[in-house]
Amino acid sequence: MRIEASPGAVTRVPGYRAAGVACGLKQSGQLDLALVLSDHPATAAGVFTTNVFRAAPVLYDEALLAREHPPLVRAVVINAGNANACTGAAGLQDAERMARITEEALGLPRDTVLVMSTGVIGHRLPMDRVEQGIYAAAQSLSTSGGAAAARAIMTTDLVPKEAYVRIDSENGRFSIGGMAKGSGMIHPALARPASPTGNPYPHATMLCLIVSDARVSAPVLQDALDAAVARSFNRITVDGDTSTNDTVLLLASGQENATEITPDSEAHRLFQAALNEVCTSLAKQIARDGEGATRLVEITVCGAISEFEAERAAKTIATSPLVKTAIFGADPNWGRILAAVGRSNVHIDPQRTDLWLGPVQLVAAGTPLDFDVHAARAMLRQPEVAIRLDLGLGSGTATVWTCDLSYKYIEINAEYHT
Amino acid sequence: MRIEASPGAVTRVPGYRAAGVACGLKQSGQLDLALVLSDHPATAAGVFTTNVFRAAPVLYDEALLAREHPPLVRAVVINAGNANACTGAAGLQDAERMARITEEALGLPRDTVLVMSTGVIGHRLPMDRVEQGIYAAAQSLSTSGGAAAARAIMTTDLVPKEAYVRIDSENGRFSIGGMAKGSGMIHPALARPASPTGNPYPHATMLCLIVSDARVSAPVLQDALDAAVARSFNRITVDGDTSTNDTVLLLASGQENATEITPDSEAHRLFQAALNEVCTSLAKQIARDGEGATRLVEITVCGAISEFEAERAAKTIATSPLVKTAIFGADPNWGRILAAVGRSNVHIDPQRTDLWLGPVQLVAAGTPLDFDVHAARAMLRQPEVAIRLDLGLGSGTATVWTCDLSYKYIEINAEYHT
Repeated sequence: MRIEASPGAVTRVPGYRAAGVACGLKQSGQLDLALVLSDHPATAAGVFTTNVFRAAPVLYDEALLAREHPPLVRAVVINAGNANACTGAAGLQDAERMARITEEALGLPRDTVLVMSTGVIGHRLPMDRVEQGIYAAAQSLSTSGGAAAARAIMTTDLVPKEAYVRIDSENGRFSIGGMAKGSGMIHPALARPASPTGNPYPHATMLCLIVSDARVSAPVLQDALDAAVARSFNRITVDGDTSTNDTVLLLASGQENATEITPDSEAHRLFQAALNEVCTSLAKQIARDGEGATRLVEITVCGAISEFEAERAAKTIATSPLVKTAIFGADPNWGRILAAVGRSNVHIDPQRTDLWLGPVQLVAAGTPLDFDVHAARAMLRQPEVAIRLDLGLGSGTATVWTCDLSYKYIEINAEYHT
Repeated sequence: MRIEASPGAVTRVPGYRAAGVACGLKQSGQLDLALVLSDHPATAAGVFTTNVFRAAPVLYDEALLAREHPPLVRAVVINAGNANACTGAAGLQDAERMARITEEALGLPRDTVLVMSTGVIGHRLPMDRVEQGIYAAAQSLSTSGGAAAARAIMTTDLVPKEAYVRIDSENGRFSIGGMAKGSGMIHPALARPASPTGNPYPHATMLCLIVSDARVSAPVLQDALDAAVARSFNRITVDGDTSTNDTVLLLASGQENATEITPDSEAHRLFQAALNEVCTSLAKQIARDGEGATRLVEITVCGAISEFEAERAAKTIATSPLVKTAIFGADPNWGRILAAVGRSNVHIDPQRTDLWLGPVQLVAAGTPLDFDVHAARAMLRQPEVAIRLDLGLGSGTATVWTCDLSYKYIEINAEYHT
């Protein structure tokens, strides 16, 4: 399976058209509204932020997908520059109107459009501009519009994030294409929509839209998305701050002649593997383009008593400002790594702890080794840094991706004014 | 009760002598070893980091204070420049030797000295220099040595931290003086020593030594320290990173004619109040002098369903890089504050959430107000910033102190090399 990060991933999937337009939501005048249309009604799955202050578009999509019989979806409209978060009942109406306007502009039935927003919190959407943008996007939809759509959803992102994979085997023929955005306020904690009768569920801004021409029922699609997100988007962090708007949506339209992918089939195994790869590629692209990042950091904790504890340990290291500034400074300061994991509330026996930086072992059985500091520093100056911590207690393993913490992060976030 | 931050707090308490010397542990040649002697055997209490990688001096002191019959203490020796952490069995021997050398230099019985260390992790202490330093300090002990001792324990601290209070009423006559250090790796999570038969307890670098001439039994002293620390040192954060060495020690020597302070007495109430004030003063001094800090930030969460949840909510805001950089940039970006508390896993009803910056209300019932942005910005440029969040659900309240996140923090931590 070969993941391609080439532009236009979403429209490389047969049966999808897209557009990206500028409607004045970004002061810079750059593209700020994306529209993706599926030529065929598609099953849909979604995972949403677990932040209590869920933004209006999150509430809107959740309600649609949590229905006992969720509708088939035809389009997704996404704006950047304004998150429509903390905007109360009026904001919810605005999210709903974005869906209605899109349906009208495209001649679609009601409840066939999903909505995503990203940008500043606490301001009403300028709905006149949004409406104008949606109509302009509807006019310019094309099978080569994926790249513009991927650019239109960016905020502080320096580069668009796209991933595409095509499976062409006797067990399955389908493609999956995805686009994502996210650079700051990245610490996704995503969960499937609460069912309407479920417990009240306290529900990261990264946005992602993945489309496929595979034929998959909505429940099977949701399970596949949950599984893929658990080890990809839910395993990245830039700054530890979970957004009010984080959303991942997955559409599966089914080709005319496609066989339905059912659980426990070889085709399902292929679909899950492909989806995992797309999600992991996009998640890593987000971590690599984290605000102010100079390098991608991959932290693997193994030997934990459970995968849950391995993930918790890895995330504690990944969110430690002292670890992240040491990496920015290319300093193999292993003491900061152990100190971070030592506060993570997981089972640890200091005497059984091994630590590696790439292939260089820094700590063995809790004792510092006399390692080659110059080699370690050189490794930390590479664009990708790999840290591996073996707790020596069990078989729990998890990998988390993050970036370093630089002067630029401070600049971006202290000199940005609401 | 008037807290004084004037120099020499520890030796303003009758019956204590102190010294600060330079023995070559800091490359700068500055003072790096402090010694405090109580003329009378003192009861002692301590709280220690809950980081799993507890440093050797922490393990040493814990073992002493966790004895069924803990010894009376005569002196505390503290070095800066080397944390004696992650140094294995040899490090533990070094910590023990620091105690033995101090006992020898002062002619004290065995097990009457407590030890604290702060500095770089993972390097053995140069015991020859330490020994020389202890003897030099023992020679220069004086009733005016408190200020030098407070300087000798500093690492990246820009200023020494001291606090002194004297109670002189018919219900109690005593004084309490304390010194503390800490600027980075500050997120204390302190707990009393595990008793030898207790559960294995997974146990932040701030150090603090508080001395008093009050007469208090060790168990009562420990309870008083636990109560004071819970709402002071355990309520500050600079970077969210809990150290391997955090320690607070409290000695009570008892004046010749002092009446013992027993629980439920008016004298006890006075002692607890005075100790709380000293701990809070020192804790705030640490937050204000956090690495790169340009301002002290006080975050109060009220209306939570419990004090525990109020504290968790306040700490989540206090550790949010997006909130801290916004404060550095003097930007009243309330959306970041709500987003942070929204991921804190406490009970929240967005519609009942009120937010204030000083006296300016930014959010009412979850809805942004049309506040005076210039006034808010001006407030954020003051040396002290107060944020108050009312969750509107219960009576749980907690105040946490932190600082902003600036370019200087990155410089200190990325350009520091092990």
